[in-house]
Amino acid sequence: MTESVAGAPSGTFGDDPEYRSAVIELLGVIACGELMAFERLSDDARLAPTMEDKIEISSMAATEFSHVLALRDRLVELGADPYASMAEFDQTFDNFHDHTAPADWYEGLVKAYVGDGLAADFYREIAAYLDPETRDLIVASLEDSGRSEFVVDRVRRAIDADPRLGGRLALWGRRIMGEALTQAQRIAAERDALTALLTGGVDRPGLDLAALGRMFTRLTERHTERMAELGLDA
Amino acid sequence: MTESVAGAPSGTFGDDPEYRSAVIELLGVIACGELMAFERLSDDARLAPTMEDKIEISSMAATEFSHVLALRDRLVELGADPYASMAEFDQTFDNFHDHTAPADWYEGLVKAYVGDGLAADFYREIAAYLDPETRDLIVASLEDSGRSEFVVDRVRRAIDADPRLGGRLALWGRRIMGEALTQAQRIAAERDALTALLTGGVDRPGLDLAALGRMFTRLTERHTERMAELGLDA
Repeated sequence: MTESVAGAPSGTFGDDPEYRSAVIELLGVIACGELMAFERLSDDARLAPTMEDKIEISSMAATEFSHVLALRDRLVELGADPYASMAEFDQTFDNFHDHTAPADWYEGLVKAYVGDGLAADFYREIAAYLDPETRDLIVASLEDSGRSEFVVDRVRRAIDADPRLGGRLALWGRRIMGEALTQAQRIAAERDALTALLTGGVDRPGLDLAALGRMFTRLTERHTERMAELGLDA
Repeated sequence: MTESVAGAPSGTFGDDPEYRSAVIELLGVIACGELMAFERLSDDARLAPTMEDKIEISSMAATEFSHVLALRDRLVELGADPYASMAEFDQTFDNFHDHTAPADWYEGLVKAYVGDGLAADFYREIAAYLDPETRDLIVASLEDSGRSEFVVDRVRRAIDADPRLGGRLALWGRRIMGEALTQAQRIAAERDALTALLTGGVDRPGLDLAALGRMFTRLTERHTERMAELGLDA
């Protein structure tokens, strides 16, 4: 899936303060994103049409939160202030969520599936360039524990019952993609250390423009696949 | 703490359908209460003054939710519809929460501590009359995993900084107690099977009026202790 880089650094940060800063920023942004996802999913639980659905979506929220704690503990191990590291990004995620507030239960489900899926793909791409310990932590923090099956089932059934819903949710999925890209670009523009994880540093190879382009293509393809799994045009 | 009853039934329900119904009602009410607590606590997280506090209260919410899943699984084992069993009580908890919506972060903390503590004491009292397997599940589902320390610290520090807050929060704690009793009485009046867990059945001894009185005294004493831990008059 991702391109490997021979020069990916080992688990020690002592010799590269820039790399350490970048990893702290990365763990901070992922933890903040998962904390916000927890908040929004538990909010969406109010819209659930049945008690079973409410418990399913609350379960997705609780899984996100368990990842926040694992990321927080790693930030502490790295000697960072985990709360400050996370708080750096809360405006970014607030912007994203303010622009993508679901109007109903199904928009919430599509947002959870498409938005979190896209974020997870993106973090996995970055993780491939990191030391094994950080990479494993990030990959573990992105596991979705069965959410796919639940969301796909509910969205497909709803579209079967009301085909017009499919058109509205397709537009909605595109809007989620657009807002996610807007916020990702803002982070890239403001966070040099984080960006350098992908583009490389003095002693560390990174992605050239062609490789970045291929990564973007992969993210777009996976987004299209997810939309298709929901029965939606991307 | 609680009075023991020699005739408490064993783990098999086959010979006592009334007992089985009562246990299903009890697990349903506890699971529903914890699900609602999860929702309210994750809502209160928005009021948190710092990222650290937000993560602490979200962690309390996630713990409540993990108990919901354990109770749900046990309801399934008992052959009950877990979602229907829980949904029976959501109006009761909605009433409670509508009447005790916290006006700020500190009211939310006191509510979490005093309200959930009271509920936990009450369920533990009932659990003493049940078969060991059900009792252990209920007791495990009530563990508070460090919430006390966090809430006590934050509330005490806030009262030190602003002593008038202590008066307002003391009134608030009494209101939580009053609303909890109102809802508990309503459940007792409407749920014969559940009430019979305490008052006994044809083949099963229960509490007489004097023993019920002593139980109520214990609950009140523990409530007063909790208020004192927070630095509040009960």
